Amino acid sequence: MLEHLRFTGSALELLDQRLLPATERWVVCRTAEDVAHAITDMVVRGAPAIGVAAACGLALAAARGDDLERATEVLLASRPTAVNLRWAIERLRAVHRGAMADEARRIHDEDIAINQAIGDCGAALLPEGARVYHHCNTGTLATGGWGTALGIVRSAHRDGRLAHVWVGETRPYLQGARLTAYELLVERIPCTLIADSVAASLMAAGRVDAVLVGCDRVAANGDTANKIGTLGLAVLAAHYGVPFYVAMPLSTLDARCPTGAQIPIEERDAAEVRGHRDLVWAADVPVFNPAFDVTPAALITAWVTEAGLWQPSPDAT
Amino acid sequence: MLEHLRFTGSALELLDQRLLPATERWVVCRTAEDVAHAITDMVVRGAPAIGVAAACGLALAAARGDDLERATEVLLASRPTAVNLRWAIERLRAVHRGAMADEARRIHDEDIAINQAIGDCGAALLPEGARVYHHCNTGTLATGGWGTALGIVRSAHRDGRLAHVWVGETRPYLQGARLTAYELLVERIPCTLIADSVAASLMAAGRVDAVLVGCDRVAANGDTANKIGTLGLAVLAAHYGVPFYVAMPLSTLDARCPTGAQIPIEERDAAEVRGHRDLVWAADVPVFNPAFDVTPAALITAWVTEAGLWQPSPDAT
Repeated sequence: MLEHLRFTGSALELLDQRLLPATERWVVCRTAEDVAHAITDMVVRGAPAIGVAAACGLALAAARGDDLERATEVLLASRPTAVNLRWAIERLRAVHRGAMADEARRIHDEDIAINQAIGDCGAALLPEGARVYHHCNTGTLATGGWGTALGIVRSAHRDGRLAHVWVGETRPYLQGARLTAYELLVERIPCTLIADSVAASLMAAGRVDAVLVGCDRVAANGDTANKIGTLGLAVLAAHYGVPFYVAMPLSTLDARCPTGAQIPIEERDAAEVRGHRDLVWAADVPVFNPAFDVTPAALITAWVTEAGLWQPSPDAT
Repeated sequence: MLEHLRFTGSALELLDQRLLPATERWVVCRTAEDVAHAITDMVVRGAPAIGVAAACGLALAAARGDDLERATEVLLASRPTAVNLRWAIERLRAVHRGAMADEARRIHDEDIAINQAIGDCGAALLPEGARVYHHCNTGTLATGGWGTALGIVRSAHRDGRLAHVWVGETRPYLQGARLTAYELLVERIPCTLIADSVAASLMAAGRVDAVLVGCDRVAANGDTANKIGTLGLAVLAAHYGVPFYVAMPLSTLDARCPTGAQIPIEERDAAEVRGHRDLVWAADVPVFNPAFDVTPAALITAWVTEAGLWQPSPDAT
């Protein structure tokens, strides 16, 4: 399995996701501050992966005898809106200093186990020889390991049920092209990269057996916020009769949020759409760059969790 | 109006579309060979624009006293599958050498008039204060001038009916981001650039009153081949009840092609998807890069031509 996060007790080594797939460089963090910088600078990304990294960061501070209040503060500030980060830090603060390294390892192991359970549950839904469509990056790189929607791909591949993965490039930030394609190539899982707008042709031609996506937040009624582009794929899948599965760690369910209308949508920088890295192909033009969209529950075939399939509660809708 | 093609009788000056929007450089062609190179190298693109350029190229050869057989051959070979190119060349060969420059100018003027007729017809379909979604580049740069689907935008803007244009970037070749955004900025038509996958959110939020696209080939039953991504937009528009209009010069109708199933789809180079220009973000991964898709007639609200709205003949479907 691809590795991207190694915790030795005195250091946290992170595969630098900003340079993938061209360069495999490891960033070595020895303090909580180092880890906070790595999170802020996007060396590591993906909510579950950030949670694991932050836990390791606090454990580093504990092992060094550093001030834990200060380390907590620095780590919480590194990505203020990440729910998993706060959860992981709080879990570490509940144990004594000497037990923190073990607790960080436990959080990492548990995240991998959750993803493997999601993967196995989802893989059982796929037909033999499945050709699946995957959006964004939901893999090892975004989690402790194995991945959520890409965990379903990994489980299906391991079980011999998977024929092929269509990798949507996922403009504007290109997580599919840069990260998912990299993961699949490393593990020799058969895949083909496409522009996002090719999805309709593939479904029309009967070349997709299921769409697999992750989620950033699921409301009580099942409305699902995920990477921009998810809603369009769900409408296409419904039109062409293709099952549409959301891989959902139970931690992503927000029971206090009644519907998708209450989920705020982050807008990101125009530069992501005007070009990539140093290359600019559309200067000056106004840009609308929402990071997520909300897919109504009615367009979703099933939510796949570590505890089996989830269904929205009837009184929530 | 934006200019991109100037014919002086002794030279054809072309705005170099490869460098837009960063640089406005004009390429000066003095021979048929110069024009053929400009077409092959994508200095000029878009079927109607190529037809006009080729006519001017042959007129240059005529004015210089060059061998017209050889000039015809070189121009026809510059983009072998372009229907408008062959049609324009044949039209020039039907007049005598001394009349060729005038005939080339006439072809150019006629193309602009056709586009303006399409624009005026389409604009009348839009509501007051229309917010339209446009895909690819179908504007002045792709035609003799004014544009087809973007001609509808121009006519609506001139008539004060247009509030806003959503510019789909049109991966992988980014004709929307590079060319359509440039044209609209030059003419101060209000617009916003988005990743293609934002279209679903916009329609779901009721922020699109009509989708406007061009076409590369329309079958007798109305099935419409156009830039990849068109089919997905048509499915979304149908789902959300948004009118979906195809701007179609009558020259694009292929009456001998019964349905979309008979339209071959060109596949282009993997490099277009793996990166842009010299920047590569996804080396090695297999790529599927179809240039076009086919939208079934049932998903199209109307075809807008220079002679009014067109409807597929009942016996063709």
